[in-house]
Amino acid sequence: MKVVEFRYLGGNEVPANWRGILSNVAYRYGGELLNTSSIEVKSFNRLERKDTYNVIGIMKGEIEPDRYIVIGNHRDAWSLGSVDPTSGTATMLEITRVLGEMYKNGFRPRRSLMFCSWGAEEYGLIGSIEYIQEYVKVLGARIVSYMNLDIAVNGAYYVNIKSSPVLFDAIVKAAKMVPSAYDPDGQTVYDKWMKVHRNDITNEPKIAFGLGSASDYFGFDQIVGSSNYDATYTFNRAEHKNLSSYALYHTSYEVFSLVKKFIDPDFLAHQSMGQLTGVLALILSESPILPLNISRYAFTLKEIVNSLNTSNPNDLDPLRDAINEFSQVANEFVERSKSMDIENPYEIRLYNDQLLQLERAFLNPLGQGPNDSDMKHIIYAPSKTSTYATLGFPGITDAIVNGIRTEIVNQIAIATFFIRGASSTLKEFDKFIAT
Amino acid sequence: MKVVEFRYLGGNEVPANWRGILSNVAYRYGGELLNTSSIEVKSFNRLERKDTYNVIGIMKGEIEPDRYIVIGNHRDAWSLGSVDPTSGTATMLEITRVLGEMYKNGFRPRRSLMFCSWGAEEYGLIGSIEYIQEYVKVLGARIVSYMNLDIAVNGAYYVNIKSSPVLFDAIVKAAKMVPSAYDPDGQTVYDKWMKVHRNDITNEPKIAFGLGSASDYFGFDQIVGSSNYDATYTFNRAEHKNLSSYALYHTSYEVFSLVKKFIDPDFLAHQSMGQLTGVLALILSESPILPLNISRYAFTLKEIVNSLNTSNPNDLDPLRDAINEFSQVANEFVERSKSMDIENPYEIRLYNDQLLQLERAFLNPLGQGPNDSDMKHIIYAPSKTSTYATLGFPGITDAIVNGIRTEIVNQIAIATFFIRGASSTLKEFDKFIAT
Repeated sequence: MKVVEFRYLGGNEVPANWRGILSNVAYRYGGELLNTSSIEVKSFNRLERKDTYNVIGIMKGEIEPDRYIVIGNHRDAWSLGSVDPTSGTATMLEITRVLGEMYKNGFRPRRSLMFCSWGAEEYGLIGSIEYIQEYVKVLGARIVSYMNLDIAVNGAYYVNIKSSPVLFDAIVKAAKMVPSAYDPDGQTVYDKWMKVHRNDITNEPKIAFGLGSASDYFGFDQIVGSSNYDATYTFNRAEHKNLSSYALYHTSYEVFSLVKKFIDPDFLAHQSMGQLTGVLALILSESPILPLNISRYAFTLKEIVNSLNTSNPNDLDPLRDAINEFSQVANEFVERSKSMDIENPYEIRLYNDQLLQLERAFLNPLGQGPNDSDMKHIIYAPSKTSTYATLGFPGITDAIVNGIRTEIVNQIAIATFFIRGASSTLKEFDKFIAT
Repeated sequence: MKVVEFRYLGGNEVPANWRGILSNVAYRYGGELLNTSSIEVKSFNRLERKDTYNVIGIMKGEIEPDRYIVIGNHRDAWSLGSVDPTSGTATMLEITRVLGEMYKNGFRPRRSLMFCSWGAEEYGLIGSIEYIQEYVKVLGARIVSYMNLDIAVNGAYYVNIKSSPVLFDAIVKAAKMVPSAYDPDGQTVYDKWMKVHRNDITNEPKIAFGLGSASDYFGFDQIVGSSNYDATYTFNRAEHKNLSSYALYHTSYEVFSLVKKFIDPDFLAHQSMGQLTGVLALILSESPILPLNISRYAFTLKEIVNSLNTSNPNDLDPLRDAINEFSQVANEFVERSKSMDIENPYEIRLYNDQLLQLERAFLNPLGQGPNDSDMKHIIYAPSKTSTYATLGFPGITDAIVNGIRTEIVNQIAIATFFIRGASSTLKEFDKFIAT
């Protein structure tokens, strides 16, 4: 496009100090093209075969080597990628450096810590999905939690988190131990949440439940069934409501100076992200009883089902009943932990297995049908009508959009079946059968 | 059919002392109808809804209550069912009676023992499949072995066993402890095998690997993925090669006197079956290290792949390579057990989990496709071209029958994928990635 054609841009004029040297045009940004102008874009691509690599490191657990806490981040970028994914890579490498120092000083994790640097995320999550598909039997049986870094830092205002509901309390615990970047001494990531990112009804930090399909957590959510986490130190989103991401996302301007000059000049947000993710990993790897709070799932399920709008509200009754039962069973499960012999490894292990397997209980092995068999999580998964985001009960949501009642009722039956199944996994081992 | 029409039967004449009182006909059995006679059969059925029940009892394990050894048997019969299934019911009830006595005397099993009396097996395995589908998440994570009784006794010559390869050694161990019915004192079920049911090449008892779809083990094989067993005390099958089952199978003549007069007059075969199954259950429930021999699977896989006839034998190379790797990994796994700290519950538990999960590693969550998604076991399952029996690698077998090379290669790729996955589950926890 020639400069003279600036005049065809229909957006607002830029601020005075942004104007260039041409005097015969008004400098504008964005907007529609004026008149019926069109732009011809020529693309000179060629198809090439390129190899890509996942780089995986494991620090073997001393007591439970067959339970994995995984931190992962992709390594490929659309262009230079100083934010996406290098803010994540820098953060993950710093975590491995610190843990490596601890290891040299004698530290051995209780559970195994796994670090994954993925290839080809931008080309369809290829690195992580191939790895997961190849080792699904190993990973499905053993992973407690996958903690994703990707765009670890695109601002320095507060930490934005998406996770499984069961991780809520462990995340809050970690956030209380980590300083908030560029804030007064003693203010933590948690404190900042309570100031600028608080749920006013519960008076708790906002953590979004359900992750979606936008990064390497996807396969862990949908195929492995672990309880996962994704975090980004971000800008003030309330002030920039129209920005879906940071301004130079996926462009060639993702260079070091972007981060150094504009996003995180002293790298304090990077530091906090490393601390938050590292501390959370250690909370998950070192607690003899896995710090997963299943009651959070019960609470969230009730919220989700209340948000569903079926034209025949009674159609949801079986699902509501199942969720009520789940809620009661979850309470009994938590109660049981109080009389546990925490010196008995067998008791610890079997209780932890129930905690670990809860998220797996929400996986439908057949997925959302023969063409979407990888979308296995019945509560949190992209749906056909919303492929990027994550809605509660995607099958039901799709059916409601389609408006066919038999399909709605069928999807409610599937969800009810899996919630009931999840309840049975939490019951006493000789009393799991419904009465 | 009127008696006079005996003359239209084309079979052989019955022995002299079987003849009836009519003098104007030759008594015959079986054969084709002579000339072009036809028979009109009128059937007076009506569709009725009937409830059926599974009756489940659990003796909770003291140390590992979340690991189940399951004994099951159906309760419904086509008619009176003194053999199918009551020989199994009598055997299972005797096992529960004995274990109940032991319990009263203080016995507590290490793992949980579960007893299942299934309804509606004859109508399509309804009782067991419904139970399995409802509790698949619980059962899939916890069952070590399902031991099926059904036709427990239809003869008193030797015990015929079908099982997963990994149970071979535990079965042999149990068989050495149980007397062979109607044989001289001191002769065991194992001794009888070595006389009349021996594999001459290996000089070991014949145990058929793979169970099929003919009884309630089906869902445990295909959906749960436990390592299963089915046993029948049977007649001399070498002498009666033309009999696919006992003569009065599924008829109204399955009455008590059939068993008492002809099959097992002193109920010694029933007794041996109860002892064999009960002892095997205790071997499986009480051994700290699960007595599953995975090397048997490696050996068997080689046998199966050698029995496959592809027109392009090299097509099988990837599968052979995967099986060779599996074999080597299995050896290393067994080797590892020798340096295990068997006082350490965590070590026991994680090693046992690897043993337990091996059979699960052979389950393809998608089964044999959208219409056969319940046929999940890639090694032993009924195939489309043989629905009742169990062949090795049913997907490959079907593809060979169809004769389309791309389909054959595709099925070999699927099998190879799952064998490789199974190998990764057996490796060291920080070295499961292929190099």
